[in-house]
Amino acid sequence: MRGIKKNPYPQPSIRRLPSYLRFLRRLRGEGLLKVSCTEIARELDLDSTQVRKDLALTGIVGRPRIGYGLADLILAIEDFLGWDRTSDAFLAGVGNLGRALIGYDNFRQCGLNIAKVFDTDGDKVGSMVFGRRIHRLGEMPALAAKSGVGLGIITVPAAAAQKVADIMAASGIKGIWNFSPVRLELPSRILVENVELVSSFAILSANMRRKRSRGVAAGHST
Amino acid sequence: MRGIKKNPYPQPSIRRLPSYLRFLRRLRGEGLLKVSCTEIARELDLDSTQVRKDLALTGIVGRPRIGYGLADLILAIEDFLGWDRTSDAFLAGVGNLGRALIGYDNFRQCGLNIAKVFDTDGDKVGSMVFGRRIHRLGEMPALAAKSGVGLGIITVPAAAAQKVADIMAASGIKGIWNFSPVRLELPSRILVENVELVSSFAILSANMRRKRSRGVAAGHST
Repeated sequence: MRGIKKNPYPQPSIRRLPSYLRFLRRLRGEGLLKVSCTEIARELDLDSTQVRKDLALTGIVGRPRIGYGLADLILAIEDFLGWDRTSDAFLAGVGNLGRALIGYDNFRQCGLNIAKVFDTDGDKVGSMVFGRRIHRLGEMPALAAKSGVGLGIITVPAAAAQKVADIMAASGIKGIWNFSPVRLELPSRILVENVELVSSFAILSANMRRKRSRGVAAGHST
Repeated sequence: MRGIKKNPYPQPSIRRLPSYLRFLRRLRGEGLLKVSCTEIARELDLDSTQVRKDLALTGIVGRPRIGYGLADLILAIEDFLGWDRTSDAFLAGVGNLGRALIGYDNFRQCGLNIAKVFDTDGDKVGSMVFGRRIHRLGEMPALAAKSGVGLGIITVPAAAAQKVADIMAASGIKGIWNFSPVRLELPSRILVENVELVSSFAILSANMRRKRSRGVAAGHST
């Protein structure tokens, strides 16, 4: 049961926490002090039992008919996710996807700061992207030694991904957010989260496929 | 139980199917004819019971000590996901993320074809991106009427997302892959899959947070 040991928390629940947080911060901005599971469930189109279960992960429990204190709940989620502090990251691969991430404003809300960016393309190295100078990939270990960065983000093409991951490991990086479609081989002390863009498309696509089948079936039955 | 009615299949299982498919296609490329759950589980660092359960979604059942016929298994997954046919998509928002998706080669493997791209920026409209002319957003309904597109991809900023979704709905689009951090309000006949980049970061970040706590706890106990 290796997959389960590694992730004692249900991943779908963790995936939902950021959307709860966004909604809760909006309510706080509107001056509210309390919120109920039912309100969160209605806003996010979920079942309220599911919402209660997800929030319990963070160790916070709502009170019947009163709900949650908004400030406490926000703090509990931020603390659970580690979003109450800033995480500096090095990003390797300043292509279109890399640029999209570097320019993505919403990362500030989760404490993610893309501190330095790297590429191997001599034409890119030395130029600026969203206020950051692009460094040579080979400079990473020295720059990491200076600043003690914890996170690496890989947005290079598949063929270069393992090499970049090795350099990140050698640079003392502890967690890698991997956007390449490669299963990285890394020492077990390094956490890896693979982003498969096509995984999310798979859900939409499978649901549309199912809807088409039902449509066809309904058509036949009339 | 609205969330459950909408998605009778477990989403984490569907999310894993694309990585199974990538591995299986690679094995087929190497000339293999059979594969077992154990082999898939080992490659993808999962539990083999989980793999068997995930694959059973597609209606295919392996045979004890023989495993799955590779060709049958690939077809079953492709059929389940609707990846055995090409889905034409319209993409709105040719910023960095839009460009990253338009240029993403791997979409061909899931039958996704970004057929036409749209923007509201007069400087972009008429220019080319990865071989596609950028159209004015207002042209979408007419172009959709001509080509009968089923999918919409939203990569515009949050403030423009609902307006784009409305235009897509009016254009007869049946499924929307939404990369904006906005909960879109749409007729229930339209399927929406929201991609929250920060959801995936939440998992990495929460795991790193937990590791830090354990590290601190271990430090205290010595």
